[in-house]
Amino acid sequence: MEKEPLLMLPGPVPMPERVRAAMMRQAINHRGAEFGEIYADCVRILKPVFGTDNELFVISGSGTAAMEAAVGNFGRGKKIACLVNGKFGERLYKIAQRYGTAREVSSEWGTPLDLAALERELEEGAEMVTLVHNETSVAIKNPAEKVGKLARKYDALFVMDGITSIGGDDVRADAWGADIAVVGSQKCLAAPAGLSAISVGERAWERLCDQRPYYLDLAAYRKSASAKLMETPYTPAVPLFLALREACLIVEEEGLENRIARHRRLSSAVRAAAVAWGLELFPKTDADHTYSNTVTAVTIPDGVKDSDFRGSIKKMGIEIAGGQDHLKGKIFRIGSMGAVGAPETLATLAAVESSLKKNGFTPKGDGVMAAAGVLG
Amino acid sequence: MEKEPLLMLPGPVPMPERVRAAMMRQAINHRGAEFGEIYADCVRILKPVFGTDNELFVISGSGTAAMEAAVGNFGRGKKIACLVNGKFGERLYKIAQRYGTAREVSSEWGTPLDLAALERELEEGAEMVTLVHNETSVAIKNPAEKVGKLARKYDALFVMDGITSIGGDDVRADAWGADIAVVGSQKCLAAPAGLSAISVGERAWERLCDQRPYYLDLAAYRKSASAKLMETPYTPAVPLFLALREACLIVEEEGLENRIARHRRLSSAVRAAAVAWGLELFPKTDADHTYSNTVTAVTIPDGVKDSDFRGSIKKMGIEIAGGQDHLKGKIFRIGSMGAVGAPETLATLAAVESSLKKNGFTPKGDGVMAAAGVLG
Repeated sequence: MEKEPLLMLPGPVPMPERVRAAMMRQAINHRGAEFGEIYADCVRILKPVFGTDNELFVISGSGTAAMEAAVGNFGRGKKIACLVNGKFGERLYKIAQRYGTAREVSSEWGTPLDLAALERELEEGAEMVTLVHNETSVAIKNPAEKVGKLARKYDALFVMDGITSIGGDDVRADAWGADIAVVGSQKCLAAPAGLSAISVGERAWERLCDQRPYYLDLAAYRKSASAKLMETPYTPAVPLFLALREACLIVEEEGLENRIARHRRLSSAVRAAAVAWGLELFPKTDADHTYSNTVTAVTIPDGVKDSDFRGSIKKMGIEIAGGQDHLKGKIFRIGSMGAVGAPETLATLAAVESSLKKNGFTPKGDGVMAAAGVLG
Repeated sequence: MEKEPLLMLPGPVPMPERVRAAMMRQAINHRGAEFGEIYADCVRILKPVFGTDNELFVISGSGTAAMEAAVGNFGRGKKIACLVNGKFGERLYKIAQRYGTAREVSSEWGTPLDLAALERELEEGAEMVTLVHNETSVAIKNPAEKVGKLARKYDALFVMDGITSIGGDDVRADAWGADIAVVGSQKCLAAPAGLSAISVGERAWERLCDQRPYYLDLAAYRKSASAKLMETPYTPAVPLFLALREACLIVEEEGLENRIARHRRLSSAVRAAAVAWGLELFPKTDADHTYSNTVTAVTIPDGVKDSDFRGSIKKMGIEIAGGQDHLKGKIFRIGSMGAVGAPETLATLAAVESSLKKNGFTPKGDGVMAAAGVLG
């Protein structure tokens, strides 16, 4: 039991045994009928998880590849307004810079987005808006529906990164007007890292760029997916498709509502622990921006050294995440993602509480019991 | 034993159990020390397999992604001469068209390349040359060393697709002047589909384009690989890395020379069978162009219907490949790739011989015994 650390990260996350075992299979021909059925199962189950009736494709590449597919197929040469309040919003801005005229609409990391500034960009002709729905770098949930409405009002395409919310939180791509939405495999779906899925609506197809990337050419994906045998245009990562199909079947068995409720309960428990300890939740919320339901970010108290703090948690066999970039050493993050439940969450919070004490911080109250109160 | 068909294709190929079992592991943090060691093992073992001392990266994407990385990072806006005598040469030409001014130097599929025509393109200023070393669509091995010499003479970059030769045939990327070389995971290395590796030499780095793709940005790969903890710039397909490392260790244990000799012996046996049956090997060879040592293409005799022919082989639990595009129905192809040995090859040839007879062709002689003679 001690060999593999328990990953309580905002991805990658622990995978159920069924998902891992699916990869043990001997190689199959990805140009055959069976692969088509595997791919079709993934698409069928993922569409309601995205909240979409649009076409949906699985890409053999990470969430970043799917985000590039969105921008590279539909944004080349266009004015792109990129909402940024964390690392992944920034990544989308960097991708947008490679393809179009990108404008960063930024707020301090972990603070609410500036929707008034977005509207000014739209008034000035922005043709595409990019948003990270669930910004794991700071554990904030951004107002996708409001952004979608603004984009639609000005007839801009709305690209929504749902990489860490889809499958773990309520996402309604179509209702929110997300012309393109993206998920990563190793997050709330609890599948292995290496795949992503992307949905593309009719408004996007109408604006498909002539000059497109090759490996990520969504027109090629569309053509191959609608062939008699559903397939991918280039060789897919077959074992990962087998695992993703299994992970999708588990989502179906659990039921999407139950799964979302579980993610909410677990992240509420983590937040309750932080509050009981007297620690500060990092993100600044408001009426539109709420705490993430799949990851929690907490400010590291003065005097506690991040590496020692997370180091002694690691000695207990548990990995939690630190801050990224300029937040390194300033926050810690606990994932409530995928297949984990109350046992993993309680164990993690006990390890965190113990490590806080060991590293010179005296918690105000008993966070573990506060969390247990939420979970029990 | 009967459940999974034996894939005697030019990729994907059957994987050793060790390779498949490696993927069963629980998720690991790809930003940790262990992932760095896994990645480093792959790179260390693959460099001599490529015949290179250059930097080498593993990409979470198929061979096509790696080919796009080559062209997209080093060929944008340049004059690119693309040698084409089969489907994959043509794919490189299509990729080149998305990034530069591409010129196709084509011969009929399965016939020798026109090196005089290539030299004319170089005289006229071609800055990059693309070549498929082992063109599986027609089972011909192209003269990489001669192409490399010509490219160097005119100071052009030489991009070599070694997707289906590296790990199964003699490849000397550095000695042949391949500034960039590429392999696919599911071919001679007998790892799962979904990864590729790319080597990049100094002459290429000096010509790195300013505008590059994002997910396939090799400058980002370089930066991440040279960090204290060797890593990838974006989330890697972790289970596939675990499997690739195991496949690489198997290559090391077998010994590269032994592995190449095995591939040669197996493909010689397949060719001997075809000749004994009185069938025609499809590719036209000459002093520079030889038969592939990892796949054999045979012309389907008059009166034999491809679907019936391969269908009855499939009933015996074995999949061989047909022709692609305009060669559909005209040729069949048998892989001698990866981990397969004499048993798989003999079984395949027996099934082929039986199916030929069943479908109206009377073989001139006993191909199975001819092959056994080569293998025994």
